[in-house]
Amino acid sequence: MNTNAALSADLLPETAKYPTLLERYRRVRSRTESLVAPLSPEDMVVQSMPDASPAKWHLAHTAWFFETFLLLPHVENYRPYDPEFAYLFNSYYEALGQRQPRAQRGMMTRPAVKSIIAYRHHVDERMVALLQSALPANIADLVELGIAHEEQHQELLLMDLLHLFSLSPVKPVYDRTWPDIKPGRRGRFIAINGGTVDIGTAAKDFAFDNEGPRHTVWLHAFEISDHLVTNAEWLEFIADGGYSRHELWLSDGWSLVQAEAWQAPLYWEQDSSSGEWRQMSLKGLQAIQPDAPVSHISYYEAAAFAAWAGARLPSEAEWEYAASAGILEQVDDAAWQWTQSAYGAYPGFRPAASAVGEYNGKFMVNQMVLRGGADITPAGHSRLTYRNFYRPGQRWMRAGLRLARDAR
Amino acid sequence: MNTNAALSADLLPETAKYPTLLERYRRVRSRTESLVAPLSPEDMVVQSMPDASPAKWHLAHTAWFFETFLLLPHVENYRPYDPEFAYLFNSYYEALGQRQPRAQRGMMTRPAVKSIIAYRHHVDERMVALLQSALPANIADLVELGIAHEEQHQELLLMDLLHLFSLSPVKPVYDRTWPDIKPGRRGRFIAINGGTVDIGTAAKDFAFDNEGPRHTVWLHAFEISDHLVTNAEWLEFIADGGYSRHELWLSDGWSLVQAEAWQAPLYWEQDSSSGEWRQMSLKGLQAIQPDAPVSHISYYEAAAFAAWAGARLPSEAEWEYAASAGILEQVDDAAWQWTQSAYGAYPGFRPAASAVGEYNGKFMVNQMVLRGGADITPAGHSRLTYRNFYRPGQRWMRAGLRLARDAR
Amino acid sequence: MNTNAALSADLLPETAKYPTLLERYRRVRSRTESLVAPLSPEDMVVQSMPDASPAKWHLAHTAWFFETFLLLPHVENYRPYDPEFAYLFNSYYEALGQRQPRAQRGMMTRPAVKSIIAYRHHVDERMVALLQSALPANIADLVELGIAHEEQHQELLLMDLLHLFSLSPVKPVYDRTWPDIKPGRRGRFIAINGGTVDIGTAAKDFAFDNEGPRHTVWLHAFEISDHLVTNAEWLEFIADGGYSRHELWLSDGWSLVQAEAWQAPLYWEQDSSSGEWRQMSLKGLQAIQPDAPVSHISYYEAAAFAAWAGARLPSEAEWEYAASAGILEQVDDAAWQWTQSAYGAYPGFRPAASAVGEYNGKFMVNQMVLRGGADITPAGHSRLTYRNFYRPGQRWMRAGLRLARDAR
Amino acid sequence: MNTNAALSADLLPETAKYPTLLERYRRVRSRTESLVAPLSPEDMVVQSMPDASPAKWHLAHTAWFFETFLLLPHVENYRPYDPEFAYLFNSYYEALGQRQPRAQRGMMTRPAVKSIIAYRHHVDERMVALLQSALPANIADLVELGIAHEEQHQELLLMDLLHLFSLSPVKPVYDRTWPDIKPGRRGRFIAINGGTVDIGTAAKDFAFDNEGPRHTVWLHAFEISDHLVTNAEWLEFIADGGYSRHELWLSDGWSLVQAEAWQAPLYWEQDSSSGEWRQMSLKGLQAIQPDAPVSHISYYEAAAFAAWAGARLPSEAEWEYAASAGILEQVDDAAWQWTQSAYGAYPGFRPAASAVGEYNGKFMVNQMVLRGGADITPAGHSRLTYRNFYRPGQRWMRAGLRLARDAR
Ligand SMILES: [Fe+3]
Ligand SMILES: [Fe+3]
Ligand SMILES: [Fe+3]
Ligand SMILES: [Fe+3]
Repeated sequence: MNTNAALSADLLPETAKYPTLLERYRRVRSRTESLVAPLSPEDMVVQSMPDASPAKWHLAHTAWFFETFLLLPHVENYRPYDPEFAYLFNSYYEALGQRQPRAQRGMMTRPAVKSIIAYRHHVDERMVALLQSALPANIADLVELGIAHEEQHQELLLMDLLHLFSLSPVKPVYDRTWPDIKPGRRGRFIAINGGTVDIGTAAKDFAFDNEGPRHTVWLHAFEISDHLVTNAEWLEFIADGGYSRHELWLSDGWSLVQAEAWQAPLYWEQDSSSGEWRQMSLKGLQAIQPDAPVSHISYYEAAAFAAWAGARLPSEAEWEYAASAGILEQVDDAAWQWTQSAYGAYPGFRPAASAVGEYNGKFMVNQMVLRGGADITPAGHSRLTYRNFYRPGQRWMRAGLRLARDAR
Repeated sequence: MNTNAALSADLLPETAKYPTLLERYRRVRSRTESLVAPLSPEDMVVQSMPDASPAKWHLAHTAWFFETFLLLPHVENYRPYDPEFAYLFNSYYEALGQRQPRAQRGMMTRPAVKSIIAYRHHVDERMVALLQSALPANIADLVELGIAHEEQHQELLLMDLLHLFSLSPVKPVYDRTWPDIKPGRRGRFIAINGGTVDIGTAAKDFAFDNEGPRHTVWLHAFEISDHLVTNAEWLEFIADGGYSRHELWLSDGWSLVQAEAWQAPLYWEQDSSSGEWRQMSLKGLQAIQPDAPVSHISYYEAAAFAAWAGARLPSEAEWEYAASAGILEQVDDAAWQWTQSAYGAYPGFRPAASAVGEYNGKFMVNQMVLRGGADITPAGHSRLTYRNFYRPGQRWMRAGLRLARDAR
Repeated sequence: MNTNAALSADLLPETAKYPTLLERYRRVRSRTESLVAPLSPEDMVVQSMPDASPAKWHLAHTAWFFETFLLLPHVENYRPYDPEFAYLFNSYYEALGQRQPRAQRGMMTRPAVKSIIAYRHHVDERMVALLQSALPANIADLVELGIAHEEQHQELLLMDLLHLFSLSPVKPVYDRTWPDIKPGRRGRFIAINGGTVDIGTAAKDFAFDNEGPRHTVWLHAFEISDHLVTNAEWLEFIADGGYSRHELWLSDGWSLVQAEAWQAPLYWEQDSSSGEWRQMSLKGLQAIQPDAPVSHISYYEAAAFAAWAGARLPSEAEWEYAASAGILEQVDDAAWQWTQSAYGAYPGFRPAASAVGEYNGKFMVNQMVLRGGADITPAGHSRLTYRNFYRPGQRWMRAGLRLARDAR
Repeated sequence: MNTNAALSADLLPETAKYPTLLERYRRVRSRTESLVAPLSPEDMVVQSMPDASPAKWHLAHTAWFFETFLLLPHVENYRPYDPEFAYLFNSYYEALGQRQPRAQRGMMTRPAVKSIIAYRHHVDERMVALLQSALPANIADLVELGIAHEEQHQELLLMDLLHLFSLSPVKPVYDRTWPDIKPGRRGRFIAINGGTVDIGTAAKDFAFDNEGPRHTVWLHAFEISDHLVTNAEWLEFIADGGYSRHELWLSDGWSLVQAEAWQAPLYWEQDSSSGEWRQMSLKGLQAIQPDAPVSHISYYEAAAFAAWAGARLPSEAEWEYAASAGILEQVDDAAWQWTQSAYGAYPGFRPAASAVGEYNGKFMVNQMVLRGGADITPAGHSRLTYRNFYRPGQRWMRAGLRLARDAR
């Protein structure tokens, strides 16, 4: 079965040019369920590491999000579907009370997948009724948030599943027909002049709170590559001793390289007889495609590669400015791109006062910004102002890199 | 559904007084499958801690045991059902090569439960054919071992399941009709004279290698209780500060009490408003039965209770001698009983030379012997010479205690 | 004995207005030794945590630095004082080969303190000879670097010592006459207009490589406090539940608050009967001074306090611009001030190619910038462009905070 | 300097055949101080691992023991030398209140060594006065205990020091003239008939509580080696793949071999060019002596060697019976000998009711018994009934092995 049908559904001709909120709600909810179609109940319950969540949990948590932030406050007399679910499926909202510890999400063999699907459909019924009524702007904004939230979890679901399957000794195939990341060519540096530029969202359309306010920054003249670094280039880095030359690495990265014996991106493994590299993917173990962008690398690896290449990572402002200028390729359909910017608040940023305010702001430390989007990111989810963020040692995201350098 | 039907099946009238090996094989294999009948696929795949295994793994490993030790060496031209299974379902036999790391058994969402059942039935078919032929004694002995092995895993399966369900926030019920542990009365000490006695198996019938050779030991006059310590007595221990008085505890036990904040047996929880104690069981959360034997206690707790009661635990030789004399009640149908004997080799013990030799001998350190049997032990599995063993801090077994003391 | 005499020595009238490099070398070397005068050999060998180093190690490592980067490359026929010292006293220079693991520095009971002093004097003799000759600029720069390096280790030595003494049950006094941090008043916000400003060193005088290049940044209008947050204000934060209100904290900070049960700054302890707070200091346990700036707080605590106060931390560019404008008090003589800036490379930054290049660049991740200087910072060591950096959870530095906020 | 002079002092001609308690007190106290004579204050303060203690701590703790159990209860109006010392120098007596956590003993740089020596002399003065009076038997017994206790700490002090020095990159020499362990020849098995024998102390002279009561055990006919296993035999074990053949090892041992990459006894290191083995000793790094008994091995290694040799370890009863028969050599002057007996209570054992009762009983789990004595054991300290005990993975004791086997 081709679960990617769900992906392309987003691209189908539409009756109207702009789908209504209701249509978009239905589409995102339905795609989540089509993503789990190839999975057995067993595949959907196991948690492979504390950073990852079971597929079943993603199914339930995204329903809980709509129930908690839309139905409960904004639908008269709405009663929780199951009062225990607030404990089971709250992710990290401290303001909403106690919750199942993150590292123990895999202990919830019950409720069963089919009960979770029933929960989703119950929420859908009420949400559809709500969406058929006239909505004030603040509620419509929350629906937008809920849709964007579910799209994020669609990507997480695929990331988490790939991680789980990579740990299985039988290396399961999620979908034999899943499309490969589109290959590209090697990048060429494009020069950009410095000066003041404005970045961040001006907030007419939906965006996450962390993308604004729009504000001025000063950029120094720089160069940025039009393509992502490829697997072939990464193989050169490996062949040149990239993983064993301390001088290329940040100190924390070098410690991790040694502690975890990294020798290649996550999911790569070398055949002990032929010496060939393969990588675990949603299609199972596959040969490395030389022209495809490298992925599943940490910030440390991205920075070491850049040092090896005599370059650096772009700042997020450089990236956004260049991307807005339309000069970059592989912007959001291949792999997220590490930047050298630590994740923090834009000038004037202020999180919402309610529980929703915990969405982004409280994570603004110890993380690096990634820009763009990946092949597994739902179509239309990302934006040029979008700020993704992960810890510098994490590797289970679809993260690659695009080089930059100071003007010569 | 009453999965305990499977238990009582062992007690049904038989066509012949002694069931044949074939009949016994069929019975044990069928009971394993009836034990998992109340479980969903999700319940069967999750590993709740490194000491526990998923139910699905128990299903597969017990089939692998027969395939590995009977079919492969003793059935001509037998080919492994799936060559990968040796890696997936070997538990700890170093002589049989690499295997899935114990703590990662829960990552195997595939093969699916139904594939495992198919594997079991494939093995059953070949085993039945083998058992219908005339078997030399050494092969019959291995079949006996395989049956006893599967019985052990039946008990482990229930232990592991209870542990998993205890970590679920919804406290699932395995079987609402599962019988409670039979209650008893408080024990009375019975005096026994000292002198030389013989203990251990004389090996005419099947027994594990660690139960022999039969050998002489010298016993000093002692007293032993005819009943197990009850929940009511344990509540007195708690009320008297048992978990906060260092002088009652072994040093390692006291460290664990503090590090893990033990205040009661595993699976007990106190209602914060009423103060009443309940315990998680195969029937779900249940009120504590005062006359039932206490269970799910560590060796440290057993020894602390004995110190509090002015008594001690029996040695395994004292236990076996008293049990053989027929003066004990609740011998093997309530809870395993901690002894003060560290698990070691009997004089003259020699493990088998092949991989089967890894069954018991290599665990003879850092463990304490438990004797008797529990309500969840398959009927007919245990013997008076049976030596069960666990680490002194483990609590997920059905472990209780019987007091002893020196002659007065 | 008043070891602070050494501090004030830096302030004594000088024969010439600008001391020569030789004079400055002698002064810094002599001050290091006077700092350890109150210490016993036992005080000087113990390592209290992996982040801290024994005083003896600081003594030796600062000599090794001069030997390695000055004497060995630039003095003809210079032979290492002891070939083993490269292993013992290299801190983190990967390019210089293997070294004693950081967490094991406390195992070096030998060589004895007096041997280390002899090593220092040997190095001094050769350095003095070198400094009496005409020095090319690149060598003079390295001497400047060595002096600045030793000043950094003087501060570290005091920090590490305070940490060690805080873990001693007898709460030793380092120096009864050590001066308290100077008290201040509560701060007032000063408004500053936005626009482009230049920050960073222009590099005429000595500065660390990470302080440059000087470069333009765009600042938005902001306000910054003229004083540091005081202990009295911190006590209000505690009294208002600051350490138990999740909504004030970054997510990583909140985890740490709970895991380590933080209830006050490091070194604070509350008298269980009177409820009064005291803090461990270089003078021993002391009453909290209400008007003194709070110190020994993590970035997480600083950010939580700022959120509680309806403010934020300044960026390092805001801090530097305001400090350069001369409108701030308590700039560098009270406590380092956390900024909201993650530590990274300035545009155009390029570390030196040799081993000295490992000084700063490889730490540019997972750290936050602190600006200013502390009472324990050697006089004259810091600059307005100085970038100190620590991990957001560390607390053994003299770190406090100065509030800022967006223009109203 | 030859600190071993102190050892031989015990062998000097005495004025009376049996030294008085006072003389013995003086001798043991003085020997402790002579043991630390070669050490610097820095050597005496560092704690190399949680199992080990600083030499200074041993000096103080042994004084505290006399002060606590003799002077405070039995000398009228005796006031504690320093009330803080009860916290600082209590080892593990829960009944005596809070104490410095074991793993933090190395943080006590103060009080200084010379203050500890002053404390010792203060205690000595009062103890001498006490010992010059007529003592009731129960007090004399406590003095015996205090002397035996100090002798134990003398051995621990040497063990801990060797461990500390082994972690120093400069491999310090404690005493260049320290005598080597006496070499022996390879052992020969001696056959011993089975039957009932009595073991344990009859308690006329001083013995620890765990050595009694004397009691009957049944022994099966066995054979025991007259000598300890030598380094030469151990090299054969290594050469034959002893550390890489899983079938020789207990399961817990095999895990440890792999986790810690054991390839030889603790303190052995192989020269990478010549391939020769050396070992760290109190004399510094030394060539391996082929005929000397192997030492610094864990129980796991001892058991694996025995399995490799087609033998086993003796039980402690077998060892004691054979030793009492006078047929063993290297009984107590070479290395402690692992037995296959887990450490537990003898029949009828009852610890003392007071704090002294915590001396032995609370450790009776998770440890294996060693018998005999070592070259570093104070002369006259051990007995044939002496029960030493350590965890099976520990290696910093002077532990070797003597083989046994079942009668053929
Ligand atoms: Fe979410
Ligand atoms: Fe098994
Ligand atoms: Fe340094
Ligand atoms: Fe002691």
